[in-house]
Amino acid sequence: MKKANKKLNASIVIIGNEILSGRTQDVNVLNISNWLNKLGVKLEEVRIIPDVETIIIKTINEIRKKFKYVFTTGGIGPTHDDITSKSIAKAFKVKHCYHPEAFKILKNYYEKGKFNIGRKKMAKTPKNATLIYNPSSAAPGFCIQNVYSLPGVPSILKSMLGGLNNKIIGGNKILSKTLSLRTVESEISIPLEKVQNKYKNLEIGSYPFFQQGKIGVSLVMRSDNAKLIEKCLGDIIKFIKKKKIKIIVRK
Amino acid sequence: MKKANKKLNASIVIIGNEILSGRTQDVNVLNISNWLNKLGVKLEEVRIIPDVETIIIKTINEIRKKFKYVFTTGGIGPTHDDITSKSIAKAFKVKHCYHPEAFKILKNYYEKGKFNIGRKKMAKTPKNATLIYNPSSAAPGFCIQNVYSLPGVPSILKSMLGGLNNKIIGGNKILSKTLSLRTVESEISIPLEKVQNKYKNLEIGSYPFFQQGKIGVSLVMRSDNAKLIEKCLGDIIKFIKKKKIKIIVRK
Repeated sequence: MKKANKKLNASIVIIGNEILSGRTQDVNVLNISNWLNKLGVKLEEVRIIPDVETIIIKTINEIRKKFKYVFTTGGIGPTHDDITSKSIAKAFKVKHCYHPEAFKILKNYYEKGKFNIGRKKMAKTPKNATLIYNPSSAAPGFCIQNVYSLPGVPSILKSMLGGLNNKIIGGNKILSKTLSLRTVESEISIPLEKVQNKYKNLEIGSYPFFQQGKIGVSLVMRSDNAKLIEKCLGDIIKFIKKKKIKIIVRK
Repeated sequence: MKKANKKLNASIVIIGNEILSGRTQDVNVLNISNWLNKLGVKLEEVRIIPDVETIIIKTINEIRKKFKYVFTTGGIGPTHDDITSKSIAKAFKVKHCYHPEAFKILKNYYEKGKFNIGRKKMAKTPKNATLIYNPSSAAPGFCIQNVYSLPGVPSILKSMLGGLNNKIIGGNKILSKTLSLRTVESEISIPLEKVQNKYKNLEIGSYPFFQQGKIGVSLVMRSDNAKLIEKCLGDIIKFIKKKKIKIIVRK
């Protein structure tokens, strides 16, 4: 990666027993990561932790110092297991209190008499947090310093990312190109390593796959430099041709 | 959870740029977690980290002291980006060398003259590691102390878990029961919290969902005590009936 992108990194902290227990398949990492690629921010670590206050506090305080941006998912709803907001307030040693704007948004959203205690809980944030608006279901996320707290429900989370675009200072878009081959990894590992050694500012990943009973390998080149990707692709195709390996189009 | 299960915990370290970059959807956490539930081992943390030696070493050395079992996924193939085995050897400060049995397995697996350098790399493990056999594609995983290294390809990983059953000392099977309701979380948050406070050895998770345009909430009770789950379910159903909330069957 280019030096300009070096510090434009991010981490995701998934707060949710339901992911650890195997009940729910996380998809938020994939969605946030692809959104970050477009902004030129590199996702460098993910942690999945349980809904336990001490663990949330410890993790947030460790991670927020290591990365430019931290995104948390989950635990900002109205039930007893939603403790993200309160825990993050404790991590930052600030009060956990009603956010006036969030309170107003939620009060307007619910019918008269329906703005109950559970719903009021969703209007609480760490003191002086900034809101992340929620176009799907009103209850906002929040941001305190470099920590951005989002809900766990994937469709709602996705709808909130757009509103964050102008809050994230990004770099060059991270580009990727995939070349899929009818071969096995061990047939190409030596020449591929040589190509990787030639291109230090580009990552080549090698991933075997199985498709309709046939095996193959996808080579993925990632960089913020489109020309470099094309040059690297040319070098790979050279040794692929020499070895008479078939390039395939994956569906 | 019961005291007997307290230390029967596990962590997964996913080693793979392809997950962080948003190219690949991880499914190994879900598969390993569900397998661990049956063995009575609780998954308590997941980390997703890049294919970077220093990060792998640091993470493994931190995590292996915190959890009884550590499972790594990815990075044990033949290409330049497969550095898990070498990095774990460094973490344990042991040599990274050919494992005689792994070498034999792979030599027999490949046709004469086809056991090339890339393939030989897959026969290397941290010194004195134990093999985890691979019924799908021969290349074994390995275990050193409490760290179990598995491949990243989900179908191969799954095929290798069976062989690990007798190596994991588990506890009581972790059971779960789900009750799905036609309501929203904020309607039930107060009575639900009361029920949770009554059952300290049981976790209740509350998860909103959207299904064919309708919203609902799934309540998930988890414990190793089936009777406790039934008792808790009874208490929840009591307040659900009082509130005239419909129980639904999810497809």
